[in-house]
Amino acid sequence: LRGLLERNGLSAAYISSATSFKYFVGYSYLATERPAALIVSAGGDVFFFGPVMERDHLFTQTQLVSQVFTYRDYPGDKHPMRLFAEWLRQLRLTNTRVGVDSASFYSSAWGYRGISLSELEPSIKFTAIGEELYSMRLVKSINEQELIRESVKWGAVGHRLLEKYTQPGLYDFEVAAKASLEASLEMKRTLGYGYKAKNWSMTPVHAGFRGQVGEHSAYPHSISIESPIQKGDVLGTGASADVDGYHSELERNLFVGKPSEKCIRYHGLMLKMQDVALAAIRPKGKCSDADKAVDGFARENGLNEYVLHHTGHAMGLEGHEAPFFDLGDNTQIEPGMVFSVEPGLYIPGLGGFRHSDTVLIKEDSVEILTKYPRDTDSLILS
Amino acid sequence: LRGLLERNGLSAAYISSATSFKYFVGYSYLATERPAALIVSAGGDVFFFGPVMERDHLFTQTQLVSQVFTYRDYPGDKHPMRLFAEWLRQLRLTNTRVGVDSASFYSSAWGYRGISLSELEPSIKFTAIGEELYSMRLVKSINEQELIRESVKWGAVGHRLLEKYTQPGLYDFEVAAKASLEASLEMKRTLGYGYKAKNWSMTPVHAGFRGQVGEHSAYPHSISIESPIQKGDVLGTGASADVDGYHSELERNLFVGKPSEKCIRYHGLMLKMQDVALAAIRPKGKCSDADKAVDGFARENGLNEYVLHHTGHAMGLEGHEAPFFDLGDNTQIEPGMVFSVEPGLYIPGLGGFRHSDTVLIKEDSVEILTKYPRDTDSLILS
Repeated sequence: LRGLLERNGLSAAYISSATSFKYFVGYSYLATERPAALIVSAGGDVFFFGPVMERDHLFTQTQLVSQVFTYRDYPGDKHPMRLFAEWLRQLRLTNTRVGVDSASFYSSAWGYRGISLSELEPSIKFTAIGEELYSMRLVKSINEQELIRESVKWGAVGHRLLEKYTQPGLYDFEVAAKASLEASLEMKRTLGYGYKAKNWSMTPVHAGFRGQVGEHSAYPHSISIESPIQKGDVLGTGASADVDGYHSELERNLFVGKPSEKCIRYHGLMLKMQDVALAAIRPKGKCSDADKAVDGFARENGLNEYVLHHTGHAMGLEGHEAPFFDLGDNTQIEPGMVFSVEPGLYIPGLGGFRHSDTVLIKEDSVEILTKYPRDTDSLILS
Repeated sequence: LRGLLERNGLSAAYISSATSFKYFVGYSYLATERPAALIVSAGGDVFFFGPVMERDHLFTQTQLVSQVFTYRDYPGDKHPMRLFAEWLRQLRLTNTRVGVDSASFYSSAWGYRGISLSELEPSIKFTAIGEELYSMRLVKSINEQELIRESVKWGAVGHRLLEKYTQPGLYDFEVAAKASLEASLEMKRTLGYGYKAKNWSMTPVHAGFRGQVGEHSAYPHSISIESPIQKGDVLGTGASADVDGYHSELERNLFVGKPSEKCIRYHGLMLKMQDVALAAIRPKGKCSDADKAVDGFARENGLNEYVLHHTGHAMGLEGHEAPFFDLGDNTQIEPGMVFSVEPGLYIPGLGGFRHSDTVLIKEDSVEILTKYPRDTDSLILS
């Protein structure tokens, strides 16, 4: 980040994305109506502007911030952005160029209404560096890779428990909560006190179905379902774990009892389609390659109408990240990138067939991090 | 919404906020890298622009959309916004004025990069109506009030179970997952097949502590904690339920065994402070009144340094909504508004003392929806 500031002749960066707080200083901020910003000076000083409720909380998570400036709350007697402008002056940033990640200086859907810092302090020349900051996250460091590997491990534990607890008559959230809790306890007991979740979810491991049950599994982003799991259902799963804010993806189909011939056929075709995708991914290749290969396979096999989304996405601190395994994304694939590979077939009235595996791009190869059974027989619950 | 269009001479509204999808047509869209929009014409036709994965899924949730326009995926061979521009032309909206809720036409943190529709289709005069759309949500209809009441009911069931399952040696997420699951099953079995969660969370009822355990309860937005619950801890709770996307707030302190004199004193002071807040809220009063009363009480009692946030916020489809019970928010309180009332005292090294109750503003009074024990004795776990 300091290199970026230097190259661009910037005196500081003004960063307002909570994901970036995690990325740059390891601080998990619950973004609400309360604006917050991380100011990183070219000299390497790090300041936090935010609500007083975070004054002490921040230091339980990071030692990288040297000073905290706080306001009581939003909107306050004085709008926090007016204080932010004053603090920027105190930091002697007037008449300099400051990089900024967002033109709105803070954005949250929770009722915040902004005032522009460029209007409040016109002597500072704010320069957009959002794209540059984002691009720093694309290639994962060895440390980040290790966190994602750890996430994969506990996602798999959660998935095993999904298999164990799934049975007809149970609601999908029931199986999910049981499996997620048991896997989370195992994780917490194994990793010990040093481990602490960074995201605000109920359990550190999250394994479940999210409504992808029976016919509803034909909706890739099904939200929930009214009725319990039934014998004969095809299920769509997902399992991951929060490791220092990083996550991974492991998704499978599960079959509640012997699947129909039709299910077996589509599941087999999906597996082939995923093989086709995996074979098309290579370091220094293009992101679009995998999706083109999938698209070709689907067309050759008359499956094109059942393909409802692209082949995968990068991941790390956010659920989905750019770049995408998508027909139109020609970003070059670099060693250190981490992607989901998850082409799917969605058959109306029958169900959705999709596995998601997490892969790490290496210098000369692609490593599948999620080593979990994927053949049809292994996924039939008796 | 149609009235708003008519008053402003707009031919249609272009709405890209997923919260607004829920609000206007009851459709829960998982916002990712994939841009989506709801187009509502002055004549009352409703169109959806979005990814093909939602084509059928949308109709499982809403009957209010008359036509769906879909693209394969983002970024695609052609950026979806270029297709959106074409579809707006097909809908004969060229050379008209269209209201728009967001200057970016879609925003998601998940790797989306936008192109501006105003540049793609300069003949359409896009007019900001985000504030007007937001303000429609401030006063809750009778139906919305009923959904929030239902949420309160199941939040309380979850909270009872938190009390039942809390004991020293357990991790906070362990108690949370057990209580949330059991309350969710009770809710689902009681409400039957017609009930379906609208938000993407593991269980419909969510009851837990979110790391507000012992000393860590002194951080109002604690994310998680490393160690299990211990005897003597003061705990901060939260319980709610997703009812058609609407939620409520019930927060209490729980004491793991007999609390210290200090804890009893601060808890008592917080209860008085909440009484002071409640007494200051009245229909047609100002939102700032409650926070000013709390601020006055805190100063009189030498507690000001322990107040780390304002007194409350409105709620509905989002966790927090405007307006706020805040010193600087002079919005007039209207019948039908729903707020949290939650002044807190946070004592470093000891813990946080805060209850949150959900109140409904009526014509001549304020109804506390969360009728749940609040005195110190009732909250001591033996």
